[in-house]
Amino acid sequence: MRFDEAYSGNVFIKSHPSYEDAQAVIYGMPMDWTVSYRPGSRFGPSRIREVSIGLEEYSPYLDRELEEVKYFDAGDIPLPFGNPYKSIELIEEYIDGLMADGKFPLGMGGEHLVSWPVMKAVSKKYPDLAIIHMDAHTDLRTDYEGEPLSHSTPIRKIAEHIGPENVYSFGIRSGMREEFDWAKENGMHISKFEVLEPLKKILPDLKGRPVYVTIDIDVLDPAHAPGTGTVDAGGITSRELLASIHAIAGSDVKVVGADLVEVAPIYDPSEQTANTASKLLREMILGWIK
Amino acid sequence: MRFDEAYSGNVFIKSHPSYEDAQAVIYGMPMDWTVSYRPGSRFGPSRIREVSIGLEEYSPYLDRELEEVKYFDAGDIPLPFGNPYKSIELIEEYIDGLMADGKFPLGMGGEHLVSWPVMKAVSKKYPDLAIIHMDAHTDLRTDYEGEPLSHSTPIRKIAEHIGPENVYSFGIRSGMREEFDWAKENGMHISKFEVLEPLKKILPDLKGRPVYVTIDIDVLDPAHAPGTGTVDAGGITSRELLASIHAIAGSDVKVVGADLVEVAPIYDPSEQTANTASKLLREMILGWIK
Amino acid sequence: MRFDEAYSGNVFIKSHPSYEDAQAVIYGMPMDWTVSYRPGSRFGPSRIREVSIGLEEYSPYLDRELEEVKYFDAGDIPLPFGNPYKSIELIEEYIDGLMADGKFPLGMGGEHLVSWPVMKAVSKKYPDLAIIHMDAHTDLRTDYEGEPLSHSTPIRKIAEHIGPENVYSFGIRSGMREEFDWAKENGMHISKFEVLEPLKKILPDLKGRPVYVTIDIDVLDPAHAPGTGTVDAGGITSRELLASIHAIAGSDVKVVGADLVEVAPIYDPSEQTANTASKLLREMILGWIK
Amino acid sequence: MRFDEAYSGNVFIKSHPSYEDAQAVIYGMPMDWTVSYRPGSRFGPSRIREVSIGLEEYSPYLDRELEEVKYFDAGDIPLPFGNPYKSIELIEEYIDGLMADGKFPLGMGGEHLVSWPVMKAVSKKYPDLAIIHMDAHTDLRTDYEGEPLSHSTPIRKIAEHIGPENVYSFGIRSGMREEFDWAKENGMHISKFEVLEPLKKILPDLKGRPVYVTIDIDVLDPAHAPGTGTVDAGGITSRELLASIHAIAGSDVKVVGADLVEVAPIYDPSEQTANTASKLLREMILGWIK
Amino acid sequence: MRFDEAYSGNVFIKSHPSYEDAQAVIYGMPMDWTVSYRPGSRFGPSRIREVSIGLEEYSPYLDRELEEVKYFDAGDIPLPFGNPYKSIELIEEYIDGLMADGKFPLGMGGEHLVSWPVMKAVSKKYPDLAIIHMDAHTDLRTDYEGEPLSHSTPIRKIAEHIGPENVYSFGIRSGMREEFDWAKENGMHISKFEVLEPLKKILPDLKGRPVYVTIDIDVLDPAHAPGTGTVDAGGITSRELLASIHAIAGSDVKVVGADLVEVAPIYDPSEQTANTASKLLREMILGWIK
Amino acid sequence: MRFDEAYSGNVFIKSHPSYEDAQAVIYGMPMDWTVSYRPGSRFGPSRIREVSIGLEEYSPYLDRELEEVKYFDAGDIPLPFGNPYKSIELIEEYIDGLMADGKFPLGMGGEHLVSWPVMKAVSKKYPDLAIIHMDAHTDLRTDYEGEPLSHSTPIRKIAEHIGPENVYSFGIRSGMREEFDWAKENGMHISKFEVLEPLKKILPDLKGRPVYVTIDIDVLDPAHAPGTGTVDAGGITSRELLASIHAIAGSDVKVVGADLVEVAPIYDPSEQTANTASKLLREMILGWIK
Repeated sequence: MRFDEAYSGNVFIKSHPSYEDAQAVIYGMPMDWTVSYRPGSRFGPSRIREVSIGLEEYSPYLDRELEEVKYFDAGDIPLPFGNPYKSIELIEEYIDGLMADGKFPLGMGGEHLVSWPVMKAVSKKYPDLAIIHMDAHTDLRTDYEGEPLSHSTPIRKIAEHIGPENVYSFGIRSGMREEFDWAKENGMHISKFEVLEPLKKILPDLKGRPVYVTIDIDVLDPAHAPGTGTVDAGGITSRELLASIHAIAGSDVKVVGADLVEVAPIYDPSEQTANTASKLLREMILGWIK
Repeated sequence: MRFDEAYSGNVFIKSHPSYEDAQAVIYGMPMDWTVSYRPGSRFGPSRIREVSIGLEEYSPYLDRELEEVKYFDAGDIPLPFGNPYKSIELIEEYIDGLMADGKFPLGMGGEHLVSWPVMKAVSKKYPDLAIIHMDAHTDLRTDYEGEPLSHSTPIRKIAEHIGPENVYSFGIRSGMREEFDWAKENGMHISKFEVLEPLKKILPDLKGRPVYVTIDIDVLDPAHAPGTGTVDAGGITSRELLASIHAIAGSDVKVVGADLVEVAPIYDPSEQTANTASKLLREMILGWIK
Repeated sequence: MRFDEAYSGNVFIKSHPSYEDAQAVIYGMPMDWTVSYRPGSRFGPSRIREVSIGLEEYSPYLDRELEEVKYFDAGDIPLPFGNPYKSIELIEEYIDGLMADGKFPLGMGGEHLVSWPVMKAVSKKYPDLAIIHMDAHTDLRTDYEGEPLSHSTPIRKIAEHIGPENVYSFGIRSGMREEFDWAKENGMHISKFEVLEPLKKILPDLKGRPVYVTIDIDVLDPAHAPGTGTVDAGGITSRELLASIHAIAGSDVKVVGADLVEVAPIYDPSEQTANTASKLLREMILGWIK
Repeated sequence: MRFDEAYSGNVFIKSHPSYEDAQAVIYGMPMDWTVSYRPGSRFGPSRIREVSIGLEEYSPYLDRELEEVKYFDAGDIPLPFGNPYKSIELIEEYIDGLMADGKFPLGMGGEHLVSWPVMKAVSKKYPDLAIIHMDAHTDLRTDYEGEPLSHSTPIRKIAEHIGPENVYSFGIRSGMREEFDWAKENGMHISKFEVLEPLKKILPDLKGRPVYVTIDIDVLDPAHAPGTGTVDAGGITSRELLASIHAIAGSDVKVVGADLVEVAPIYDPSEQTANTASKLLREMILGWIK
Repeated sequence: MRFDEAYSGNVFIKSHPSYEDAQAVIYGMPMDWTVSYRPGSRFGPSRIREVSIGLEEYSPYLDRELEEVKYFDAGDIPLPFGNPYKSIELIEEYIDGLMADGKFPLGMGGEHLVSWPVMKAVSKKYPDLAIIHMDAHTDLRTDYEGEPLSHSTPIRKIAEHIGPENVYSFGIRSGMREEFDWAKENGMHISKFEVLEPLKKILPDLKGRPVYVTIDIDVLDPAHAPGTGTVDAGGITSRELLASIHAIAGSDVKVVGADLVEVAPIYDPSEQTANTASKLLREMILGWIK
Repeated sequence: MRFDEAYSGNVFIKSHPSYEDAQAVIYGMPMDWTVSYRPGSRFGPSRIREVSIGLEEYSPYLDRELEEVKYFDAGDIPLPFGNPYKSIELIEEYIDGLMADGKFPLGMGGEHLVSWPVMKAVSKKYPDLAIIHMDAHTDLRTDYEGEPLSHSTPIRKIAEHIGPENVYSFGIRSGMREEFDWAKENGMHISKFEVLEPLKKILPDLKGRPVYVTIDIDVLDPAHAPGTGTVDAGGITSRELLASIHAIAGSDVKVVGADLVEVAPIYDPSEQTANTASKLLREMILGWIK
């Protein structure tokens, strides 16, 4: 007597009914309390699920259908409002569980800080982990006006944790001079403005390595993703981002986890950003979960 | 490993986990294909659930908490787009099942036409059923420009089915002259413009009778419910509608089913209408399900 | 081969097809270039026509139908952008023609300044004209920071033209101290905050007189009319405004012209203000054009 | 005494006043009742007309002005709400009349299903008709969850009617695997993702043939057309679509009819989609009606 | 060479140019990081200032003009994103300074938690301080899911600090049963649903006492204040709230500080809430700062 | 005791505190009264300042930080509503003062007509001034339906004032045939559709010359700038516009003043256009003020 939840948009479309035999787990991380500009991404995961009912299940890019992958939508991790410390603890703990169970973690933000505990947890299992990071912003601050837990710090944290030389940022068009300098001095890779072309050049270097991919939706130009906290002109098109996802899918890296963060529905009156995010997730599922 | 769905707004807040021991069942009827003006109410049930996470579980009006009632949120009934005939068949069939199982049906529209098969199904069990109808519009047309299945006809249909003298409309401020004439000639009750005062006068007459209550959110003034298909100035306040729900709760009628229809999120940029609808549902649950 | 224009919302619903035998003429005055706060009312007339397709043709308040009145929708008067001087000349000239043809002028603004040339033209035919003015604002300035043609001056202009004692303002809740003082010193009537009750008291005094009624939609509270240039909290409900229209309809004054101004669609995302305006116009037509 | 309707945006700008001597006829098909995702395109034609007042009459792309073509805006075809069967009958009947009168049909949707009866009617006059179809979606379903009349079926219907080998789809980025397979197996042309380059290659093959062009506005990326029912990332730019219209204009095909469908104003808060649609229509008129 | 800032809406209209000789100081507290539902009030103070340019400087309610009061707009207090502990420390420190300088503190939120450090600071100077609290919500929680610093706790904190018998809440229509019980058991006053009438009864009891007034904009019905984090149907009108401000102004209490919180511009597409807030502030200034 | 204004978004971020030692002056020209389509740009300057708080102070394009340039934000020039004649007088007078003081004028519109008095004033100091104009529209009309002061005329006015051969327009995709003809006949440069490539070709010809750059935000495609009065499909990307600013920065022309006009916040629900404008201004400051 319970109707298919996907029909109401309450889980990501075609979500598998059970956790146990799922290859991957989708989960929301509805946190936005450290953002310095416009909050609202806490509602991103919920809206992405809702609009996913408008998706076709088949990708003409990858010639693959969603039913070929088993992924379980676990809902949103309950996080304490206004407490970033405890929130990241809870996230890390949850991902530790997923890794122990051999699941591919596929997260939806929330602000970008949520990626930090996920990447940390994944790196426990994969000591040679590399990070592919697509974003408008460096996110390399040590703190934001004194606060070490900020949406502008997650890449710095993971870079210090696994070594800056294992972090590859693409599409960056905003940051402090100090952040760019730190990256250069520490051997971290930053491709400014572009994603697809530099990515194609670097993927062969990552051959065979486990890779976690974190995508901040604001790597897209505001034309393609108005519904996010910090819009920044001069970004890439959704076409380039799709092609980048496909480039990774067609490469020899082994994607071991991924997230898509910073969708903020309240700045998305036409729901175009949420719809784009749901399509990106479909391509991430079909391209990366083998 | 599945997080509480209510946390993500994927079911109505505090929804009971199982159908079997629930007193009531909440279900969405996401249909809007016969409306003559602005469509969009198909997304009403989903949005009402989503915003229900903002509700307190306690009603200071009724001094009762949601955990005191067991209701199961079944999701949305899958309905075939653009086919009103089959849609109402499917709804009737579903409600027949609920009635057989002894559940209190609590529906969310969708356009008002969805109430017709529900009321018909409920009347099978309760031959002496009375209808309390709160709406801006008479909904007493036989057809809309030739179409017998239209959002402007459900009250006519139920009135002809159970007898017009058993139908009580309140708050009506829009309709054709022929509709008002038909009601008068056939002994159907219509209270124009007002809800609370005429309702208080009529409730004693319905003492002990089984009553189905159908509320079109547009009985509210557009100030209180902009997010609906057909807004019509001069309506009642949300305060009056709450008081009307409480008046029924405090009366001697036996509510045996209810619905709230015509919430259209796309016309609700501040989500005030969806939030109001979720509060109205809480009060309907706490006041009418004993 | 031309479809009914009302079906597309291109004329006000049920508009009569010819000018010649029409009792009344509806026209838009799409001007907003002198407003001191938020422009956009130039698109008001067009949007009011568009949404009028959602109206019922029958008024349950007045028990009368639109087909009982012949009114011709002439479209919008072409006005030169940014030139208030020429714009008011063109309006006055047009209304002169309507008066010569014996038509009831029913205007849609546009900013309130457009009412000045209309009232002036009407006063030529009716030397004993009285003005009933419903508004949040006094509109009694002599100028706005030096500009004599401003949306804040039309009532001052007509008051000086026909005598302040012939002007009756209702619902006023905003203005400069000097404006209130000028009104008091010159025998002009101002009812602060309220419309219906003071109107009922004054209508008998106007018995038999020709009256022009000018309604600024912002006399409504922002809850009831967010889509206007200058919202001001503490206003009346649409219910009170409807009742005020009906009070005039039921009185012994002779309405000889009317307008409804300041609907600004861009501030009206749910189109509730335009819908309310179209209902108000229906009641003005049915109540005042005998 | 009737003002120029184009001034109020009530007809498409520069519309010719009479049907009789017009080369082309513009008409709206305000139907959206079979859509599976977001309804609202019924208001597309009306809004496109309204915003057309912002257009220049001259095309610097084609060096031609609107006054060089005589087109009559007939308004919207009245269609019965919620009844797709009767709606397509009425549309076909209307187009039969236009074809009999030798008019170029230029339609505005409404959902894409409206193109089916138009193409069918046009094919009666031109047995060797070819279809150029620009869209994000294949629209090649036989039915949608059992409903044969659906916005996802029109291209399948015309392909079966005139032969799949006469149908050329461009820009397709969404559909079921079965749809792509059916096209391939039946000799129908589909260009995935791109429009301009494949179109340029195919146009010479269509030399001298009568061609009907149907454009679903969602062939544009959501960045360029957020105001539509089913947005899908990865689409083309408005610049590419304009160039595609110009490529057809400069080719040796004979365009004998065209439409632009799926503009949904409620998802278009900045009205950019409606404005883009009105410019596309101008270029279609200037480029295709000789 | 610096233009009047009020002209650009960069300070609250008619703000006095210097701190030193101002009677009152206006300041923003742009914090929203503990809210459990919809964030966004951090931008409230800025938007209220911006729209204040649409205000008249004269109050026809109080017959007083803004130039009769000297208030200095100090801008927004810089607060660390995501750190509620430090934020409230900074606020308290700032208010301590204002009190030392003998200024009347007039704050704009931000979430309601910001009122806690203000009230605490004011109570240092006025040991017999009473609080008048207008709100939809009790805000009497000890914590929110474990977090002691939450937007749902400020009234509990001040009640425990100065004694619950000195706190008077009005308009409350939402909260947990435990909160209502705590208030009753501890002698705190709560008027449910209504503000004006119970306030009038209580004001005489507070004769001569120093009173701090904290207004959560959500005490208004969502119709009157859609632009806030947690809308809750069944609230009061802006007219009742204005009258309540005037009732305090006309009473014998001595207002020694006040705030207006929870305006969230992103949920306020017509800017009606911000405009209402700016009018409320004008009346608070004119009525309470003597 | 006055908080940093930039924190509240009340001045453009990092604005220098004093006029005297500033190299450049930023000022708003909040005028929109002559526009023929959608007004609202009067609020552009204020909103651009507000969102500038979201900007990084460092440009990774130019490797330069805002603190390396001293610019003073003077606020908005007070302009008389509805009086274009006096408005342009006041602007010219203000710019005369800036030029006398040796300041770089950096203006924010407002409608494009505001650029005319600025360019005129700048040309007094630089008789060999050249104009670089980026826009969707020619703006070469002599008048708009008889009005010589119109948003469609400023480039004609300056072209006639300094000689058409000194005016270089880029990105033009809309205008009357007569305007294109006039430009061609009079030796004025117009690059249709494109900006960056033709600009790169022309910049060497302008070597060493003083250049004023006027950018109408609508040179961007509506996808990149929906928030403007007259959107026109087929425009350039924000990436191309940024590159064009950088091309000028890297050339041998001497930029002596600039403006960015036609940002209309009300058509910008996601604030993407205002955010883009603030980034463009940052790059203009860092690239052009040496």
